[in-house]
Amino acid sequence: MIELALKNYCEKIDKRLDILLPASSQYYKAVSEAARYSVFAGGKRIRPVILLEFYKLFGGDDDCAYNFACAVEMIHTYSLIHDDLPCMDNDDMRRGKPSNHKKYGEAMALLAGDALLTESFGVASRTLGIEPERIVRALGFLSKNAGIDGMIGGQVIDTCSGEPATEEILKKTYLLKTGALIKASAVCGAILAGATDRELEMAAEYAECVGMAFQIIDDILDCSGDEKTLGKPVGSDKKNSKTTMVDLLGVERCRALCKDLTDRAMGILSDFEGETDLLKELTEYLLKRNY
Amino acid sequence: MIELALKNYCEKIDKRLDILLPASSQYYKAVSEAARYSVFAGGKRIRPVILLEFYKLFGGDDDCAYNFACAVEMIHTYSLIHDDLPCMDNDDMRRGKPSNHKKYGEAMALLAGDALLTESFGVASRTLGIEPERIVRALGFLSKNAGIDGMIGGQVIDTCSGEPATEEILKKTYLLKTGALIKASAVCGAILAGATDRELEMAAEYAECVGMAFQIIDDILDCSGDEKTLGKPVGSDKKNSKTTMVDLLGVERCRALCKDLTDRAMGILSDFEGETDLLKELTEYLLKRNY
Repeated sequence: MIELALKNYCEKIDKRLDILLPASSQYYKAVSEAARYSVFAGGKRIRPVILLEFYKLFGGDDDCAYNFACAVEMIHTYSLIHDDLPCMDNDDMRRGKPSNHKKYGEAMALLAGDALLTESFGVASRTLGIEPERIVRALGFLSKNAGIDGMIGGQVIDTCSGEPATEEILKKTYLLKTGALIKASAVCGAILAGATDRELEMAAEYAECVGMAFQIIDDILDCSGDEKTLGKPVGSDKKNSKTTMVDLLGVERCRALCKDLTDRAMGILSDFEGETDLLKELTEYLLKRNY
Repeated sequence: MIELALKNYCEKIDKRLDILLPASSQYYKAVSEAARYSVFAGGKRIRPVILLEFYKLFGGDDDCAYNFACAVEMIHTYSLIHDDLPCMDNDDMRRGKPSNHKKYGEAMALLAGDALLTESFGVASRTLGIEPERIVRALGFLSKNAGIDGMIGGQVIDTCSGEPATEEILKKTYLLKTGALIKASAVCGAILAGATDRELEMAAEYAECVGMAFQIIDDILDCSGDEKTLGKPVGSDKKNSKTTMVDLLGVERCRALCKDLTDRAMGILSDFEGETDLLKELTEYLLKRNY
């Protein structure tokens, strides 16, 4: 049931992304092609789905929020392209294919990432059928959570800190690196639908639990997953001498932690008055994923 | 007179940038520091000044548009940081100082650029005292002109095309690489002030002339300027085997072309009903600059 719902969502999201990221004109086609390569490399579209579901939860007509949802996916994709670059994690494979710079070269991968990030805010600003006040507020929230106090802050701790990672630092890193954009998805969906401040807080808390669990599961899969299912080599954290939560707590305690986080997320969903069945299934699904 | 006016503007712009880009918190201070290093490296703040002057020209109260003006400067700065990276132009010096990656390393320079671009849209979205409709429209215009069909498109032709450059291709490149963000400055200022469509067209045309002249003067300075005044080595285009307009037309024809473009820009300014004295002085000043 959830797989089918996700498949339907993916089709609609991909269709919109295809319109929003056209193959472009003569001279600078190359950068559109490189951007599209990574955008259509088979992402699960978790973030846009969360955005659209929170938008619906607070009474939004979901078709209006698709641009904004695609913008979040574009930001997610740019972050993967830049993160794979030689000066960052230097990963050759992503989702079972050569990473962007392996396929198009470093300069083009850099520019494709820059392009996706730049275009994402334009795409989000063209969210029609929603009050401009809400769009402006959501854009501010998205920027903050994708920026220095969000995803990029997490990348900085992850890549450049050089300090030995403690459990506290890792949790902070995960909340920023992975959690912040998932939080932006839930909260922007809620903002666009006109949710109350209390509801925005609950959406943020839900997303922080899901984001943290998501990253810890990534760690577990990186040390014990199946390369073919994952589409990338396992052990890349080790290769980059990165301490993960698995190193600190062991697999079993990590699994227990993810279960706790998922339970908390489910509890928050139950506290909402509206329909959260799909979000609940998605939350359970993310806990059990093997890729 | 224009030097003094620019100095006053710079002080206000720098003061606002200092607030908008705080040194940030414990863990991810490093990226704020790297971003601030390039933002406060002595830029001329031409783009924010143009934005603020067009905003005032169409009746805006200039204090409201400072955030948006700073956002454009942040985008300009990110583009310089990424452009200097080894996989792009590989420039070691910028404005008389080591370029960002020379000072902070490649990973941090990449992230500092990403951070400036990401934060810029948040900063622009927090433009208070202006109708959200106008902010959303200006954000869309800014994204488009900084993106694939604008500045990034220009970078792609400039860096990755590999084709021999003709005069036509170079003009297109300059209009995108340099002209698009100057156009965004003029037009966003006008949008935020509520200018008419005809006025927006005129603002765009003015900025295209100025942007093209600006880039050709850069070419002239790159082959004949003084390294100390410029703050970077001359001959960097030659080093990167880039064909410039000077290669195609020679210095004298380039100077004549810049004079023509400046005359056209001045003519457009004269057609506006409002006060354009400072913009006129700025336009002449840009033609005569030696750094």
